[in-house]
Amino acid sequence: MKRLGILTSGGDAPGMNAAIRAAVRTATRLGVQMVGYLDGYCGLVRGAFVELDDRAVGNIIQRGGTILGTSRCPEFFDPEVRAQAANQMKLDGVDGLIVIGGDGSFRGALALQDECGVAVAGLPGTIDNDVWGTEESIGFDTAVNTALLAIDQLRDTGESTGMMFFVEVMGRTSGAIALHTAVAGGAAGVVVPEAHAEIGLVIERIRETMAKGKRSHIIVVAEGDEAGGAFGVAPIIGKALDRPYRVVVLGHTQRGGRPTMRDRLVASEGGAMAVEALVAGRTGVMIGRQGGRSVEVNLRDVVNNGHPPVNAGLLRLAQQLSG
Amino acid sequence: MKRLGILTSGGDAPGMNAAIRAAVRTATRLGVQMVGYLDGYCGLVRGAFVELDDRAVGNIIQRGGTILGTSRCPEFFDPEVRAQAANQMKLDGVDGLIVIGGDGSFRGALALQDECGVAVAGLPGTIDNDVWGTEESIGFDTAVNTALLAIDQLRDTGESTGMMFFVEVMGRTSGAIALHTAVAGGAAGVVVPEAHAEIGLVIERIRETMAKGKRSHIIVVAEGDEAGGAFGVAPIIGKALDRPYRVVVLGHTQRGGRPTMRDRLVASEGGAMAVEALVAGRTGVMIGRQGGRSVEVNLRDVVNNGHPPVNAGLLRLAQQLSG
Amino acid sequence: MKRLGILTSGGDAPGMNAAIRAAVRTATRLGVQMVGYLDGYCGLVRGAFVELDDRAVGNIIQRGGTILGTSRCPEFFDPEVRAQAANQMKLDGVDGLIVIGGDGSFRGALALQDECGVAVAGLPGTIDNDVWGTEESIGFDTAVNTALLAIDQLRDTGESTGMMFFVEVMGRTSGAIALHTAVAGGAAGVVVPEAHAEIGLVIERIRETMAKGKRSHIIVVAEGDEAGGAFGVAPIIGKALDRPYRVVVLGHTQRGGRPTMRDRLVASEGGAMAVEALVAGRTGVMIGRQGGRSVEVNLRDVVNNGHPPVNAGLLRLAQQLSG
Amino acid sequence: MKRLGILTSGGDAPGMNAAIRAAVRTATRLGVQMVGYLDGYCGLVRGAFVELDDRAVGNIIQRGGTILGTSRCPEFFDPEVRAQAANQMKLDGVDGLIVIGGDGSFRGALALQDECGVAVAGLPGTIDNDVWGTEESIGFDTAVNTALLAIDQLRDTGESTGMMFFVEVMGRTSGAIALHTAVAGGAAGVVVPEAHAEIGLVIERIRETMAKGKRSHIIVVAEGDEAGGAFGVAPIIGKALDRPYRVVVLGHTQRGGRPTMRDRLVASEGGAMAVEALVAGRTGVMIGRQGGRSVEVNLRDVVNNGHPPVNAGLLRLAQQLSG
Repeated sequence: MKRLGILTSGGDAPGMNAAIRAAVRTATRLGVQMVGYLDGYCGLVRGAFVELDDRAVGNIIQRGGTILGTSRCPEFFDPEVRAQAANQMKLDGVDGLIVIGGDGSFRGALALQDECGVAVAGLPGTIDNDVWGTEESIGFDTAVNTALLAIDQLRDTGESTGMMFFVEVMGRTSGAIALHTAVAGGAAGVVVPEAHAEIGLVIERIRETMAKGKRSHIIVVAEGDEAGGAFGVAPIIGKALDRPYRVVVLGHTQRGGRPTMRDRLVASEGGAMAVEALVAGRTGVMIGRQGGRSVEVNLRDVVNNGHPPVNAGLLRLAQQLSG
Repeated sequence: MKRLGILTSGGDAPGMNAAIRAAVRTATRLGVQMVGYLDGYCGLVRGAFVELDDRAVGNIIQRGGTILGTSRCPEFFDPEVRAQAANQMKLDGVDGLIVIGGDGSFRGALALQDECGVAVAGLPGTIDNDVWGTEESIGFDTAVNTALLAIDQLRDTGESTGMMFFVEVMGRTSGAIALHTAVAGGAAGVVVPEAHAEIGLVIERIRETMAKGKRSHIIVVAEGDEAGGAFGVAPIIGKALDRPYRVVVLGHTQRGGRPTMRDRLVASEGGAMAVEALVAGRTGVMIGRQGGRSVEVNLRDVVNNGHPPVNAGLLRLAQQLSG
Repeated sequence: MKRLGILTSGGDAPGMNAAIRAAVRTATRLGVQMVGYLDGYCGLVRGAFVELDDRAVGNIIQRGGTILGTSRCPEFFDPEVRAQAANQMKLDGVDGLIVIGGDGSFRGALALQDECGVAVAGLPGTIDNDVWGTEESIGFDTAVNTALLAIDQLRDTGESTGMMFFVEVMGRTSGAIALHTAVAGGAAGVVVPEAHAEIGLVIERIRETMAKGKRSHIIVVAEGDEAGGAFGVAPIIGKALDRPYRVVVLGHTQRGGRPTMRDRLVASEGGAMAVEALVAGRTGVMIGRQGGRSVEVNLRDVVNNGHPPVNAGLLRLAQQLSG
Repeated sequence: MKRLGILTSGGDAPGMNAAIRAAVRTATRLGVQMVGYLDGYCGLVRGAFVELDDRAVGNIIQRGGTILGTSRCPEFFDPEVRAQAANQMKLDGVDGLIVIGGDGSFRGALALQDECGVAVAGLPGTIDNDVWGTEESIGFDTAVNTALLAIDQLRDTGESTGMMFFVEVMGRTSGAIALHTAVAGGAAGVVVPEAHAEIGLVIERIRETMAKGKRSHIIVVAEGDEAGGAFGVAPIIGKALDRPYRVVVLGHTQRGGRPTMRDRLVASEGGAMAVEALVAGRTGVMIGRQGGRSVEVNLRDVVNNGHPPVNAGLLRLAQQLSG
């Protein structure tokens, strides 16, 4: 192993830069060169890369986004395009590849390994925290804290005016951001894609707390909820309770910003371990978090197991503690 | 003057608590008692108030919202209700009233003075900065900085992915928040209620900068724009440029959060000067900012002059510096 | 179990309010009343408490510090004082006690149980993360993120001027804050109480990176380091490298501020589980985090095992990734 | 005027990058090229510069520090070195120079103009806000808001524990940061270099408020106070009141971080107007803020008038509102 490639794929997530930095500096220490492919698999196919040495990754650990750029690259679903990419890697003298992204990106990496014999390692980098095999994906902690700030700000005005707010957070198929934001934000209710009929529960619970004198109510809604996100949920609940409300859509603000300590730490450990795995000859692994520690997980299991289920205990806690 | 009342009215704004604190402590120093009416004019009409001494306003200067609560109180448009309020003040032993709010709230205060002889002073407290006679209203600086954080976060992901973003900020009739956010955020374009035909300019300017290699574009849209806020503007620009985009609606998050230094300072000076004016026998004044200093302004002028025009120089600067 | 007491003891930590809120609301759900003793064990001894119902703990989840107040209470080392406290609890009709604090506070709780038969449960609340039996104590995540913000700010000016900075963080006997801050902040070096001779390593490593062109260096120092904190370490390193430097002492700023999502979540789970344990008749437990989950831990083990060792893997990672 | 140079000098300040960006983009619009000299006057003397076009200053408006680097350059006090710099500018084809810094930096610029006929314009960039002729220097607003965050954090723990804190902020000869931080932070006292005997006043005032039940006290100290900064002042006050205390030294954290809206706006207007002045043939001007507006000020007046006096009204307000 003389030269490794690294790329970021799919949606960007805060902490990706910390992972790139850790991978590069670990490679340096192990006597391996590193190159960064630009804009995800698109750059890999075109052979568009930059050399990355220790100084090239200086002063990036605190930056949101990814210095390598990222994109979704549908053409990479095509086996011929993957063969071309593998060929390009040979031309570039690159022996192995680290992919930072979600399960879709890992599917591409695994195909590259299976079809073309490329050594690959994955790092879960997505704010949605919807990757099997890891308790935390890079970017999740930052995204939830960003959403939490919005909740805290709304709380000020909610307490002052008695207004009801609906906050749409990211999560097309996963309620993880919504759920964590709701528990930590002390929300009056939460609506996620994985659970049904919770809108009725939210209405009932708010009625109870209004009776006890609670003045302000914030409801967190995942964008992927079947009722159609916050703009879908708000009129239903607002009408049922006959109360005025306002909607906030946080959108991509949750992807940006300075990464939190935790995202930088998980990313740093992950970036280092991904390089160590490849250099030691282990391929088809993802560096996940299990039991609060960074561990190697079988990448095929990650891809095959799909999204993890919603945290039922946390959902229950959100309901119990609202009030 | 033995006892003064204070209330917050209309939308809440960060810094209102600093103004309440300053008013109370200045009153104490001048040997005057202070009471706080709850939930704006509604509390005044009902005689719902709390006694406020120096300790009652401790540890609030850093809090968003208003400890007194606020509301819109349409019944106060009725002269009979105002007479009732003035009577209630007499019963409460309250000789004068400080109103923190926008021009609508000041209209009520002025009517109370003219019809019932109540001594009144106004403090401009609204995030929209749309009050005549002051360069800055309490809450504006915080609101723009909140919006600016969102822009900075989107910038991370915009640079990483090349995506285009539309950010809707508050301002139903005023583009002040949008304009300041756009200049300070380095936005690619800004759309405000006061100017027309700027959508064409924004499209043209983005085309130019795309040609020069600019990858990420953020457009700030005031909610009150005639095109219908960000959800109205985004498809027009997105289609013209044939680019994917996302929309963020910051909504009431801009009302909350820790007030900035400037909002606390302007509020503190204003709260102190409002009490000093009333105690000195001056009524019908607003404490505004002019030439960078806190000064007494004639409240009738404020109410009669309507909203100040958009800052044309700043609008030009926003366009010139985008790129 | 009809009535439970709760108190916060030792240094305050962000997230304590979230724990109080969760405990109270869980108690309500289980039909148990809750009272909050003021200023730690001092309030317990004096019988100074407030009734806590669901509304009393509204709008506190986002606040730093503790609404109950906290203090160190040396008189509680005296068995007679503890007997008095137990007696006071009986007078107050309080059947069990939740103590949020560090291992010193737990020692007092355990003695209360052993000597007086009081049912007790502990929640680890200390920014230092130095409690045996838990991977994270309430407040740690917030404290490190606060320190991290300072590092990021220094980085701006370090890159602009080439200056070297020493940042003293909290941790009299534990380097956990320093270590996590250093890894996440990309520090050039870290000095902790638990390791020796690392000052030489830091100097050597900085020399190497200076040779490679690194312009800015930040060194994180735990206050409890044997060399005397940042003011002790700075001249040694500054002189060895013949470079100008500046010192920052973050001090108690690390105890305050809005708690992070993680601290609120861990606190919320912990507060709920502590009440559930006591109501179910289990005493002498602490709700800790193990393997990334909230679990019941034997409180005696916590007290007997003393402080956990420094995370050697993380210390190594900090050194490897600096550069 | 075909080509302008720009440099940042002295201590860095947040907002400098916004000024550089605005200057470059305004120059482009006026058909003038721009180069950036590196590390202040040192780069000017050596002819070390980078070409700056519109894209080169993209994505920097939100960054603290200065992309050009800065330094203090004592050799520039030497007229021969200045002659050499002027000569170098001719070789570089640079017709005029914009200097962002404090009054010391402006002194050098003025000498360059007087001795060598170089057209110069100044922009006040220093967190200390100690430049004559401007109400606000670039960086001041951000620095005070950074200090304010620390005060708010200490307030949490102060209220919880009753502890007293001393916070040292920047300002070797100017109390502006300390004063604004104290008023906006609701500090119990403030100690600045420009006023004498205020320590006695602070002690007296704290005694009064302790008697009224105030639990927490924060005292802001400018580093340049004659008593020796926070470590000098704290024992005097702590002993007089017989209370435990802690010291925080914010140091250079105040120079970094995302610039506030206001600093970016003032910097953007200033950068644009500095270029416009030079292109229009006006030299020896500084773009300052007067009466809340950006205006051209005579640079010689700035240099000759020394530091502005402390804001006596604000100092009085700080004392009146503490409590």
